This record gives sequence, C-alpha cells and structure tokens, in this order.
Amino acid sequence: MTKKRPLILVTNDDGITAPGIRTLIEIMNEIGEVVVVAPDSPQSAMGHAITINSTLHCEQIKVADGPQIEYSCSGTPADCVKLAVNELLDRTPDLCVSGINHGSNSSINVIYSGTMSAAIEAGIEGIPAIGFSLLDFKWHADFKQSEEFVKKITLNTLLNGLPEGVVLNVNIPNLKKEEIKGTKICRQAMGVWKEIFDKRKSPFGKEYYWLSGEFVNRDKGQDTDVYALENGFISIVPVQFDLTAHHMIQKLNSWEL
Amino acid sequence: MTKKRPLILVTNDDGITAPGIRTLIEIMNEIGEVVVVAPDSPQSAMGHAITINSTLHCEQIKVADGPQIEYSCSGTPADCVKLAVNELLDRTPDLCVSGINHGSNSSINVIYSGTMSAAIEAGIEGIPAIGFSLLDFKWHADFKQSEEFVKKITLNTLLNGLPEGVVLNVNIPNLKKEEIKGTKICRQAMGVWKEIFDKRKSPFGKEYYWLSGEFVNRDKGQDTDVYALENGFISIVPVQFDLTAHHMIQKLNSWEL
Repeated sequence: MTKKRPLILVTNDDGITAPGIRTLIEIMNEIGEVVVVAPDSPQSAMGHAITINSTLHCEQIKVADGPQIEYSCSGTPADCVKLAVNELLDRTPDLCVSGINHGSNSSINVIYSGTMSAAIEAGIEGIPAIGFSLLDFKWHADFKQSEEFVKKITLNTLLNGLPEGVVLNVNIPNLKKEEIKGTKICRQAMGVWKEIFDKRKSPFGKEYYWLSGEFVNRDKGQDTDVYALENGFISIVPVQFDLTAHHMIQKLNSWEL
Repeated sequence: MTKKRPLILVTNDDGITAPGIRTLIEIMNEIGEVVVVAPDSPQSAMGHAITINSTLHCEQIKVADGPQIEYSCSGTPADCVKLAVNELLDRTPDLCVSGINHGSNSSINVIYSGTMSAAIEAGIEGIPAIGFSLLDFKWHADFKQSEEFVKKITLNTLLNGLPEGVVLNVNIPNLKKEEIKGTKICRQAMGVWKEIFDKRKSPFGKEYYWLSGEFVNRDKGQDTDVYALENGFISIVPVQFDLTAHHMIQKLNSWEL
C-alpha cells in the first residue's frame, strides 16, 4: 500500500503568473498533489486584508504545463486561502506554501506582507504553512538557486508538522546556490521603515503623495533574520498569530481603571 | 507654567465621517490637542495594508465643529498614520487613538482589523496607541454609553505610557452605561471564522462569491476578551507586533535542515 501523496495548496501575492510562484509550483509537484489558488493580479503590501464589501471571482485556468490544478482569484492572498479551504478543495490541505515572493519579508515587514498573510490565514485554518521570499525584487529574479533549500524545508515541515498557532517565515538571500551557507532559525529583527512621502502635483494642480522610504535596522541581535540574511544564511522565523503581549497583562492590572 | 497639552492623533477604518470617530474626537478634544487623519471612505477588513503601488491624496477638511484639525486621506488606516507622522504633523504625537470602530475587533479578528492596524502602525513608529471598538455594527450605534471608559483608559495610557512594542486593543460591549461592569485586562481568545462562500451568478451568467460566515469561539478561557465581553466587561488586550513564536525556536533547531 502506498501512502497518499500530501495535498499542497500554493498561493502568493505577486499574482499567479509571477516567476516566483511558478518555481514554487515546480518544486511542490515533486512532493505532492498541488492545487494553486492565487491572485489574478499583484497584491503586495496588502497585509491581512480580506474582501468583505465586494464580490470575488475565481476561475480554473492553466498557466503552465504540469500536473497542478490552478485557480486564478480576484481577491487578496488571505481570500485565496479562505476560498480554497472552504469552497474549492474537497479535503483539507496537508500544507500551504506561499511565494516565492519577489522581495524580502524579513523583520517587521512580515506584518505588511501579503505572502505571509496567506500563510497565517492557513495557520488560522489549522493548516501547516510556510511563506517563502527571495531578497530580489526583480520580476526575473533567479529562483532556481534556492530550490534545494525550499524542498528540504517543505519536507521537514511535512515530516515534523507545526504546532497549532505557528507558521514559518522563510527568507532567502539573493546569492548563488554555492554561496548560500545554510539555514538559521531566527527571531524577527525589530527594524523599521523610515518613510519618505514624495509630494507631487498632478497635471491638474492637485497635490498627491507616493509612499517610499528606506529600511532601518535598529536591532543588532545576531539571532535575528536580518543578521542571518546579511551573513549568507536562509532565515526561518516561526511566526504566531496570537498577538497578545502576555508579559504586559500583569502590569496593566496595576492601572487604576 | 502650564504643561503642554498632549498631541493626539485620531484615525479609524470606517471613514472620517463615521459616528464612531466623531465621538472619539469629542472625547479627545477634552484631553489634548487633536489632529484627525482618517480615510475618506470605509476601509474595514483591510488588515495591515499599505499603499505602495498607487498614489495617496490627502486634504484638510472640516467635518464637524470643534478645535480639532482634520485631514481626509485616500489610503488605508496604516497609510493615514504613516502620512500623519512623517508628513503632516510637525511633532511626534503623544498618543494615537483609532476608532471607535463600528463592530467587534476581539479575539483573532485583530489581525483583519483596519482599526487595529492603525494602532499597530503607530506602535511601530514608537507612539503609544489604542484601538477602540464597539460591539455594534450599526452606523448609528450608541457610542455615548462608553465615553467615560474611553476617557479613563486614554488618560491612564497617557499617564503610565506603554512599553515599546505594545499597543492596546479595547472592545466595548453593546450595553447601556449602567450595565457595563467595568474593564478587564485579557488575552486574545483563539476563536475562528467559519467561512461560508455564497456562490451566485451575475446577470451575464458568470459565477462569483460573497464571503460571509460566523464566528466560532473554541477558546473557553475566562481570561479571554470574548469571555469578558460576554459578561458585560470592556476588554483590554495588550497587543504586540513582534510576531516571533519564541517558544518554537528551540524545537525548530532540532530539525534536520
């Protein structure tokens, strides 16, 4: 008797045609039965948005050859996971993988990340989940270099499982395969974005802004994801979605409310 | 010499004209110097979305009488806070308050909440912040019942401050003033949404979905926000934005990666 192949849900936030998700699908096809439910257009920086005041469209399509089943969806990454689990799939997936994102989702940026919101949504639904990101914003970034690591992390997650309430955030340095030193389990660095609002005038004289800025890492810890990435390692941060600051409860109880 | 009045940034996710934010502005006018930077339209369930692939518009307006300065902004709640702190205000606010939201942001829902994403964004910027939500979805909900409590929690936060990395999530039961039993410091209940996708056909024969569902609380703990609210208390949950699941780091180090 052969063991049933795991059912793997694949999604992302760069859209279903992005090279990052196409690489991830190829890797997952080697591991299990793959269903792709991904946004029909880029959804970066969507945070944990869900669509409740508008309708969702979803259709089965075929973007590339392979055994995977693919759905393109009008919603956010979190919508895609909800729709997959509650409507499209006839059994609960054994794993959800999101990405490979074009660009970093390390440090504090996990909170703005559509890639990670999909993984977290899967976690909320009780499904082990991993978000993968490559530190290269380019559309034609070289995702092949990290294939072996992505596969190893995925197989380990299927083998060991993840406790309830925890998903993984994996970031990959933009290096050649032979330059990647391995993986490191890390905590999230407490960096911040120093925002710059670029103020402009429209052709009609109306002022508007572009949000831009630079990442400032105030956290020099050697156990952080940013440190690992700067030193040639793939960072793996266990991420939780119970946002309670348990250490503050006692202190707050001393307030005179 | 009189002490300078605190500068209070007020925002929300229901839009600048919502009765909930109008009540919050009135309360804050009694406490400090108020600047409102809020979305020009409803942004519920936007999670921690930010606008990076589109432009932002912002204009000074006057929605109601009072000493407050008001800006209406085309972005998400997190955008409003970024824009306020980095562009519109000439000094860092002493406090950011978000809400009062029309509807609950208790339990796991904090992660989908635009109201709380604004408070968290302020926290990331190093500003003490509180999100307020009333458990009544109606536009003309009665926000006056909780005024005294909102004021007390705000004054306590200004007096005691909050440690770096922590903001407050306050939910108010939909009760008359005399029925509210007080406040309780809580942890976030681990409830979930059981999604239902309502599948329909457009007039042109194309299928589409509406996301709906019901909240299922699997967490029976008496120290949770849901329990406090069900028993007539205002819940206060300290919320953190370091999402690292620190307890998982050691376990992950035993994986063969």
